[in-house]
Amino acid sequence: MRLEAGLLFASDSRTNAGVDHIATFRKMTVFEQAEERLIVLLSSGNLATTQSVVSLLQQRLHHDGMHLLNARSMYDAAELVGQTIREVLARDAHDIQQAQGIDFGGNFLVGGQIRGEAPRLFHVYPQGNFIEACEDTPYFQIGESKYGKPIIDRVVDFRTTLAEAAKCTLISFDSTVRSNLSVGLPIDMLLYRGDSFAPARPHRIDREDRYFMRLRRGWGEGLRRVFARLPDAEWFETPDEPKR
Amino acid sequence: MRLEAGLLFASDSRTNAGVDHIATFRKMTVFEQAEERLIVLLSSGNLATTQSVVSLLQQRLHHDGMHLLNARSMYDAAELVGQTIREVLARDAHDIQQAQGIDFGGNFLVGGQIRGEAPRLFHVYPQGNFIEACEDTPYFQIGESKYGKPIIDRVVDFRTTLAEAAKCTLISFDSTVRSNLSVGLPIDMLLYRGDSFAPARPHRIDREDRYFMRLRRGWGEGLRRVFARLPDAEWFETPDEPKR
Repeated sequence: MRLEAGLLFASDSRTNAGVDHIATFRKMTVFEQAEERLIVLLSSGNLATTQSVVSLLQQRLHHDGMHLLNARSMYDAAELVGQTIREVLARDAHDIQQAQGIDFGGNFLVGGQIRGEAPRLFHVYPQGNFIEACEDTPYFQIGESKYGKPIIDRVVDFRTTLAEAAKCTLISFDSTVRSNLSVGLPIDMLLYRGDSFAPARPHRIDREDRYFMRLRRGWGEGLRRVFARLPDAEWFETPDEPKR
Repeated sequence: MRLEAGLLFASDSRTNAGVDHIATFRKMTVFEQAEERLIVLLSSGNLATTQSVVSLLQQRLHHDGMHLLNARSMYDAAELVGQTIREVLARDAHDIQQAQGIDFGGNFLVGGQIRGEAPRLFHVYPQGNFIEACEDTPYFQIGESKYGKPIIDRVVDFRTTLAEAAKCTLISFDSTVRSNLSVGLPIDMLLYRGDSFAPARPHRIDREDRYFMRLRRGWGEGLRRVFARLPDAEWFETPDEPKR
């Protein structure tokens, strides 16, 4: 999310190749230089592809040429991620994909701030092109995004505070985790206040996290209370049905 | 949904071929014989395929051989729907699909009651095979199902009353309609009390439906109230952020 107050990043850590092979991998990678820049990558899709993209981006920090610690703008950083996706897919996927029906693609969210610019957030597609979040559409999701979208659409806009956005994000993840096996705890969350250039302090939320437990319970009970108070429709009231 | 009390069917009426071609079509078809059987079909997927399947099933009611008004069991009815999907796909999709990358597939939900059996509900896949709902999994969704799944998972179980199930279904549709353009009003809803063999009275809910408007408003306000009362996390309280 790219909000007026800053940026929020969150990722789960479940990866799977079918339900019989479920593993935990961090999907958030931070690149930072004190007082000058913070760039955060979130990934979804084929793990071999996204890991390779991240590894190449990290390895090249020590090389000549453009990399994430010397890119002049977040736009250039997003373009670099896109190029690297194309490079990995050209290497790994050019023939095999057709033959085996495997999806080698990966999506990235690339957000952060480089001194001289406002905080920015991009969604880089498997094709390497990308779009940027704006005031009207202040957030992106990648991966298993649909289950958790309605609550974000109801609550979050550009002026939402970081604390509220974090609360909403955890509720959104909770809905997804309940409805889909391919998304699972722990959740990595990173909040960045615009123009602070503060060191990144990602917070890892597992199933014993007290705040998350409190949110889950409070939200679930609250929903059921709101639901119970809403009226039944007259057009199918059925006198023979006992009230529960 | 196949509940202890009976069956609930609901469908939206939006079909699209890209966002520039959006149209309204009924996706619910009822086959009934007074005091003897009620069979309801809901469809999703390729409209040419699903309309053909329904037309063939209707046309054959007047022919010899098995059809939906003489099938001996709901199991046989589901199998007939599956066979008809295979027949239409064999006719329309056998070469073209490979060449043009079009998905000709359609999914059907087939539910109802035939005298001598309990109410039953099946999900028939594009391949023509099918699964049946049971007490542990009392509902199926087809089409754009993810946005609206979390609320159903929280509220509905086998013992939920029909009125509560209807309320939950409308809330689920509301969430989907808000988050995805490919799902839209009006909603067709049909409730069937088990063993009643009562005439089907589908209810059509459009955006002026007073009950639906009341649910939407009450649910939206209720969610925001529950959300506002949940606490912020201590681990990212930021004293410089003004409270809204």
